[in-house]
Amino acid sequence: GHLTFTGPGKDDAELAAAAAAGVLINVESEGEMARLASLAGNRPVRVGLRINPDFELKASGMHMGGGARQFGIDAERVPEALDALARTDLAFEGFHVFAGSQCLDAGALCEAMEKTTDLILRLAERAPAPVRRLNIGGGFGIPYFPGETPLDLAAVGAGLAVQTARLAAVLPDAKVSIELGRYLVGEAGVYVTRVLDRKLSRGQIFLVTDGGLHQHLAASGNLGQVIRRNYPLAVGTRIDSPTTETVNIVGRLCTPIDLLGDRVALPPADVGDLIVIFQSGAYGLTASPAGFLGHSPAKEILL
Amino acid sequence: GHLTFTGPGKDDAELAAAAAAGVLINVESEGEMARLASLAGNRPVRVGLRINPDFELKASGMHMGGGARQFGIDAERVPEALDALARTDLAFEGFHVFAGSQCLDAGALCEAMEKTTDLILRLAERAPAPVRRLNIGGGFGIPYFPGETPLDLAAVGAGLAVQTARLAAVLPDAKVSIELGRYLVGEAGVYVTRVLDRKLSRGQIFLVTDGGLHQHLAASGNLGQVIRRNYPLAVGTRIDSPTTETVNIVGRLCTPIDLLGDRVALPPADVGDLIVIFQSGAYGLTASPAGFLGHSPAKEILL
Repeated sequence: GHLTFTGPGKDDAELAAAAAAGVLINVESEGEMARLASLAGNRPVRVGLRINPDFELKASGMHMGGGARQFGIDAERVPEALDALARTDLAFEGFHVFAGSQCLDAGALCEAMEKTTDLILRLAERAPAPVRRLNIGGGFGIPYFPGETPLDLAAVGAGLAVQTARLAAVLPDAKVSIELGRYLVGEAGVYVTRVLDRKLSRGQIFLVTDGGLHQHLAASGNLGQVIRRNYPLAVGTRIDSPTTETVNIVGRLCTPIDLLGDRVALPPADVGDLIVIFQSGAYGLTASPAGFLGHSPAKEILL
Repeated sequence: GHLTFTGPGKDDAELAAAAAAGVLINVESEGEMARLASLAGNRPVRVGLRINPDFELKASGMHMGGGARQFGIDAERVPEALDALARTDLAFEGFHVFAGSQCLDAGALCEAMEKTTDLILRLAERAPAPVRRLNIGGGFGIPYFPGETPLDLAAVGAGLAVQTARLAAVLPDAKVSIELGRYLVGEAGVYVTRVLDRKLSRGQIFLVTDGGLHQHLAASGNLGQVIRRNYPLAVGTRIDSPTTETVNIVGRLCTPIDLLGDRVALPPADVGDLIVIFQSGAYGLTASPAGFLGHSPAKEILL
């Protein structure tokens, strides 16, 4: 199998274990490369260079490249880093470029893939060994909020084919990977929580559930959302009933930020009904503060 | 001891267990009261009413009362709720009012305590039994950000003495409690994380640590902050060195929101140095997504 170890903070023990296991280590800075070379001694530990590109993925939910970043080595310093790498016993294998995430604009993704390819082809000229591994990132988004539409995958695929052909022509030994975590699993998971109380407060209806942000932080808007928006949701036990009222859906925690649905139009629901939050297969339970306020954990069920 | 069970989402099993254990249950809605009465049968289960006040704690970091809320029964509906309670076998013991949290303005706290007392004295006239327990909330804040100053505790204490005297004069059987979680422990805890990498990216210095938002979500600004601000922090291993550079302090997670310090002026720090984040004794580790991205957990040490 092909395992890589990527991320801005790797400690010595982790680097040593990954090196010993033959894992490809994507170094994120010149300092990390030097530290790994020192740990590796004269062993030919497999190394890739993560590059902080000199462009951004436009229309993305989160920029991970361009500008000053904790991720990767700035593109303009990579030639020098490759020269430094050539002076070690580390075994160069390739590059990793990740420009951004959660993008629903096929054109922006195609443009980023083209720029990524340009960058890799330029930098590969300085590589101390044949390029065998290329991770050109991902950024394929899924729709969460009103007005968002699914990614035009055919258009992205066509753009990807163009760029992989360009890479194959110049770097025939390179195996190209893309990273699609959220795109693959985000839509496959739903979060289900039960209504424990239905109450009225000053003209607003509140459905209090047995869940909350300790089980789904992202749906509460507290995992990087700048402006809080509701995830798509439904009353699972009344899926075919008409939408006739507007309610707030809250969790059980003693904090007003434990808000899963802010004035959502739904069929009337009552104690015992199930609230379903879609698009919860990525950045769900494991990205939530499960220990907060001592409530019981959510169950994960694979169907 | 005196235990209470408060919070907007209590399931039947929890209510039954609390009732059996003789815990005082603060009901948060008329519906929850009816459900508890049904579960209790003719047992005189100890009950308090949580009230959603008809005012807000001014200058507080988080409003928990006033307006439409998931917490408590709207003040204007409490008289009817007390009449309904009188028709059950539940044993009324008192009230709980929590107007807001994280307030550093002694005047605002004194005003809220006065309004809370007014409200309680007005509602107590309708109580079906002597008032024995009163929780008048908290909201005592601690300073986190530049320009914030510690609470004037003497002024708050003087205001509290006035209100407790008013309560004692009219409700001599009532034991009055305040809630001070963050105020008691917030300043007692520090979060310490080690620098794994020091890197430069397009003119900015990044200190990459072996911690991150999976260990201290609040310090990353993702636990209810509307505008992200830096927690107070220091280089623990260079505490007496002059502050001569501006750095970003990030965690090890692969997301740009894993930012613990945004352009902070600090003494120069390098790999191995310890970054200390103050005011971390409340809303720290347990309020963080410990399972996010599979890194090792933080250690909690009591000194």
